[in-house]
Amino acid sequence: MKVLILGGAGMVGQRLVRNLVADGLTAGSISELILHDVVTAAKPQADFPVTGLVGNLADPAEAKKLAGLKPDVIFHLAAIVSGEAEQNFNKGWDINARGTWWLLEALRDEYEKSAQTYCPKLVFTSSIAVFGAPFPDKITDDFLTAPQTSYGAQKAMTELLINDYSRKGYIDGMSIRLPTICVRPGKPNLAASSFFSGIIREPLNGQEAILPVPDSVRHWHASPRSAVGFLIHAANMDLTTLGARRALNMPGVSCTVAEQIEALRAVAGSDVIKLIRREPNELIMSIVANWARDFAPERALALGFTAETSFDQIIKIYIEEEQPQA
Amino acid sequence: MKVLILGGAGMVGQRLVRNLVADGLTAGSISELILHDVVTAAKPQADFPVTGLVGNLADPAEAKKLAGLKPDVIFHLAAIVSGEAEQNFNKGWDINARGTWWLLEALRDEYEKSAQTYCPKLVFTSSIAVFGAPFPDKITDDFLTAPQTSYGAQKAMTELLINDYSRKGYIDGMSIRLPTICVRPGKPNLAASSFFSGIIREPLNGQEAILPVPDSVRHWHASPRSAVGFLIHAANMDLTTLGARRALNMPGVSCTVAEQIEALRAVAGSDVIKLIRREPNELIMSIVANWARDFAPERALALGFTAETSFDQIIKIYIEEEQPQA
Repeated sequence: MKVLILGGAGMVGQRLVRNLVADGLTAGSISELILHDVVTAAKPQADFPVTGLVGNLADPAEAKKLAGLKPDVIFHLAAIVSGEAEQNFNKGWDINARGTWWLLEALRDEYEKSAQTYCPKLVFTSSIAVFGAPFPDKITDDFLTAPQTSYGAQKAMTELLINDYSRKGYIDGMSIRLPTICVRPGKPNLAASSFFSGIIREPLNGQEAILPVPDSVRHWHASPRSAVGFLIHAANMDLTTLGARRALNMPGVSCTVAEQIEALRAVAGSDVIKLIRREPNELIMSIVANWARDFAPERALALGFTAETSFDQIIKIYIEEEQPQA
Repeated sequence: MKVLILGGAGMVGQRLVRNLVADGLTAGSISELILHDVVTAAKPQADFPVTGLVGNLADPAEAKKLAGLKPDVIFHLAAIVSGEAEQNFNKGWDINARGTWWLLEALRDEYEKSAQTYCPKLVFTSSIAVFGAPFPDKITDDFLTAPQTSYGAQKAMTELLINDYSRKGYIDGMSIRLPTICVRPGKPNLAASSFFSGIIREPLNGQEAILPVPDSVRHWHASPRSAVGFLIHAANMDLTTLGARRALNMPGVSCTVAEQIEALRAVAGSDVIKLIRREPNELIMSIVANWARDFAPERALALGFTAETSFDQIIKIYIEEEQPQA
């Protein structure tokens, strides 16, 4: 099986690569792995050839080139992040929405050219940003998508396209609505959600972290390891079992910032949490107020998707994988 | 106010024209009415100039031309119908989705060119086809959009675009999810929903009607008069009261085919209903099984949208407006 990862240079993309190299896919033996991104992706040592491609999905010619490779499985992780899509309207819609549409059209062309035999599996990383307030206590599987960011609208639109192209048999796709991925390794970024990782990561590395929202803020988290697990599970499963609704809320951990901090204390001690400095930020508070807090992801759980069940586990995974310096 | 109707030659479009000519809009005095369609729209006598334009919305140049007219209010009723969009994938996506996106982009250009002062009101006719089975007994305002036709996916995608362009302030839009419009005047068509009107219209005109589904089938209806009422109400209201969720389920009448037939008997007598011939059609039954049956359109009702409250009323409106011949 030829496997293509769009966004192969990113944090989740590189973890997915490592996982595929180590464990493969139960759905079939990997014959080639192609890593596509706007920058050069690091290539692993592997038992199968690994190819790197650099290009921009907003270009329709890029979609044709990629579809022409006829991958059997496509992991589509490429995206302009939420904050940038909000600031740069054109760029967000071009890459997050039009780009995927070009890809789907190019895949449909290959389907037609192959006498309707070519039909790749496509696993798309959507996001809980497809939801917008007001929310019920727990978001159920039949709650409406009412995004309040361009990023969320672009993800929701792509879900609709993937559903319809799958219903027609042109692709065999599914959309995975990722929780906020926590603890992200590396440096803080400009995303409004950055602090959810920062208040764990920075103290564990002996650095001060700024908390811009009240301790009572509740949010929905899963580890990078779980994110990769969702993708692999989707690639291995029979997607026709999803029926007509191929976009799924993934499992995760719902907790408040206070509970995050308490978990950090339990795992790393009281001194570590003293490095969290409260500095309320009205802008971030207003953004976070519209974010999903809790889910009842019953369909995903029934289909065998799994995540952490406590924030302690999420912290321990970060420590195990990243070996922070404090 | 300059008013543009896209799909101005259609059944609802022409009724909207008559209503605007007779009653205007309370939101402002109409200075010009522009009727756009792929065919020449009939033009009424009016106290203001009425212009007819013929063109295809799938052409980006057409969108630029229309936005360049800088209408203050746009009623967007133009669409490839459900059956045709299902048979002709490209045509459906081109006109029902890409075409509206071109228009939104052209309107955003005008917004930028006007130093961000031009911001038209846009009222878009969406459809209950954005929903797909399985359904709750009544579809609430926060039920997910899970279309099972390309037409429904195109409408749902356009709703997302209209929400996001409105949130950004480029337009001031809303999407009206119309019930099945009943009783449609004229001849039966190839739409799977055609029989809902046919079993009333044909008998009232002394002709036989074919009923392809069991009498127990329940569906959601409103008259053409209500459809025009929704559009006018939306154009007159302050759309910012909608908040972030600018797509709304409209009120209607939920009834079974048996109740439709009983209403026809009550209004027109027992001889008339003898003209309904039961001829089950597996294909139509399978399509209709995925259609919405009943709604709790609480937001629309609270915002003053109104429809009929019984199927008797729907039949009487048809008789009053169309004066059938039997």
